[in-house]
Amino acid sequence: MTTVLLSLAVWNPARWLTSLQERLPDEKVIALEPDGSFAGTDAELAETEYLVAWKPQAELFARLPKLKAILSVGAGVDHLLDIPTLPDLPIARIVDPDLTNRMVEYVAWQALHHLRLGPSYQALQRAGQWRALPQPAAREVTVGIMGLGVLGIASAELLIQLGFRVTGWSRRAKDVAGVVGYHGDGQLRAFLGDTDILVCLLPDTPKTRGMLSAKLFGQLRQDGPLGGPILINAGRGRLQNEADIAAALTNGLLRGASLDVFAEEPLPASSPLWKLDNLFITPHVASVSDPAVLPRLIARQVKRMEAGEELQYLVDRSAGY
Amino acid sequence: MTTVLLSLAVWNPARWLTSLQERLPDEKVIALEPDGSFAGTDAELAETEYLVAWKPQAELFARLPKLKAILSVGAGVDHLLDIPTLPDLPIARIVDPDLTNRMVEYVAWQALHHLRLGPSYQALQRAGQWRALPQPAAREVTVGIMGLGVLGIASAELLIQLGFRVTGWSRRAKDVAGVVGYHGDGQLRAFLGDTDILVCLLPDTPKTRGMLSAKLFGQLRQDGPLGGPILINAGRGRLQNEADIAAALTNGLLRGASLDVFAEEPLPASSPLWKLDNLFITPHVASVSDPAVLPRLIARQVKRMEAGEELQYLVDRSAGY
Repeated sequence: MTTVLLSLAVWNPARWLTSLQERLPDEKVIALEPDGSFAGTDAELAETEYLVAWKPQAELFARLPKLKAILSVGAGVDHLLDIPTLPDLPIARIVDPDLTNRMVEYVAWQALHHLRLGPSYQALQRAGQWRALPQPAAREVTVGIMGLGVLGIASAELLIQLGFRVTGWSRRAKDVAGVVGYHGDGQLRAFLGDTDILVCLLPDTPKTRGMLSAKLFGQLRQDGPLGGPILINAGRGRLQNEADIAAALTNGLLRGASLDVFAEEPLPASSPLWKLDNLFITPHVASVSDPAVLPRLIARQVKRMEAGEELQYLVDRSAGY
Repeated sequence: MTTVLLSLAVWNPARWLTSLQERLPDEKVIALEPDGSFAGTDAELAETEYLVAWKPQAELFARLPKLKAILSVGAGVDHLLDIPTLPDLPIARIVDPDLTNRMVEYVAWQALHHLRLGPSYQALQRAGQWRALPQPAAREVTVGIMGLGVLGIASAELLIQLGFRVTGWSRRAKDVAGVVGYHGDGQLRAFLGDTDILVCLLPDTPKTRGMLSAKLFGQLRQDGPLGGPILINAGRGRLQNEADIAAALTNGLLRGASLDVFAEEPLPASSPLWKLDNLFITPHVASVSDPAVLPRLIARQVKRMEAGEELQYLVDRSAGY
């Protein structure tokens, strides 16, 4: 019998405990309280071999001497890699087909919203004005996807089918059917200059942090068919400079934007972003883990490793994701 | 040499004249002014064999004794069939792949907007509130399409791919892959009771006029996963009772709506619809004819008939569309 520990930060672990224990009837499943405390003994905690984690506390790891692997609850792992005391063990991310579908849905929704001039038509509606606007075709509009992982590739496939021209930028060269590929620092500028709608699905790493800045926006195609570039960020909030975004949406460097993630979440009430009507804000819901699905995926990983197989979806710690 | 007459109501015919003449170099192309007057002689007009028309004046037909066919500029033909003096000649509608793509795009955009709780998140943004809402999956939501013509079938295909459950209702039984079919007056109620998002793509006929009423809204599924039914009308404005829609969006009989068409266009400034923030208004732009494409399609029809072939996309006048 192995011990699986849940450390889910603010999430209530009760449903998870029941659900995961049902799926791992031969193992012992325990959980920290939302405040990080543990109701059992330190000896129980010390038996932990698998940590299922969302934003675990740095102090936790010293109490888990038998830990074998860390299973992130979520596709991003910056919440783990930022921890200085993180032990050198295998880390796996969640790859949930439902998470992928949800993200593709969000990207398609927001790309269509900007293609079809949604912010402008909503402003006209508020003003009580009936006016048809020049409407470019999807094939005249290039969506540039930063980050060609599972989510980026699946998003590209649907966007191509919707008729958009699609380009992609990734750290290393990738060959994705129907996608004009750019890669590396050397091709970033060419990629941006060939982009009307920028979709950011990058992970949060020291290299990507803060890159969605005024300097980058100025490199996007400014004379495109939508009257100015669009930013859609569903990656991580720390990639974006929010003061720059607010300024760009006001001075026209960006024509519009959709943000699902923010440097600080919840977005503070004092943020100037709330008031911008060419910005579509959603509260980090583009792709939300379904509590009913995740325990099944976690249980499968524990079973794999206990059967001597390698974990799926391992994180490359040197790359930072 | 045959004569082709353009009668395009408010549209400026200049670009059309040039473009159509280029594509029909052996024929004579003439045009009425936007006010319905003709700069040439009555004798020239009397040679007209093909009328390319958008909302032609009733008096026109008495001046066209040699008319052989009427080519509607647009998918809908109510602008023709309403004319009491309309001669009994073949009438063809426009079926433009671009028009179809645009309509599919609009339907997908608005279906996603309501699935992903766009109106609620935009209201929260205006209030400066960060709050995640329960998000049903597309597969839990049924989109019911009224009208399974070219536009309805193409819309169904994309909605199915986006993961929605899709049903359809048509006058006569139709078998569309992946679509749960209902037909005729007898199955309308069952169709409505099985619908969360109603997409109306019906033509305007004496049978359909006014059918989008409080009575119909009350028959839509009221306890569905989106917290109430949604109406999307991109068919014709005269199908809808706008006072009923305003009331339904206020009293909760409808959870939300998207209207691209209105009984009177432009929608009068006095309409209460403008102020409803669970209604998305667009000014009849869901699927707009591209002036660059239509002359090509019209020219093809003239060539077909001159070559002794039948026109494509003929209107069934007894059905009214």
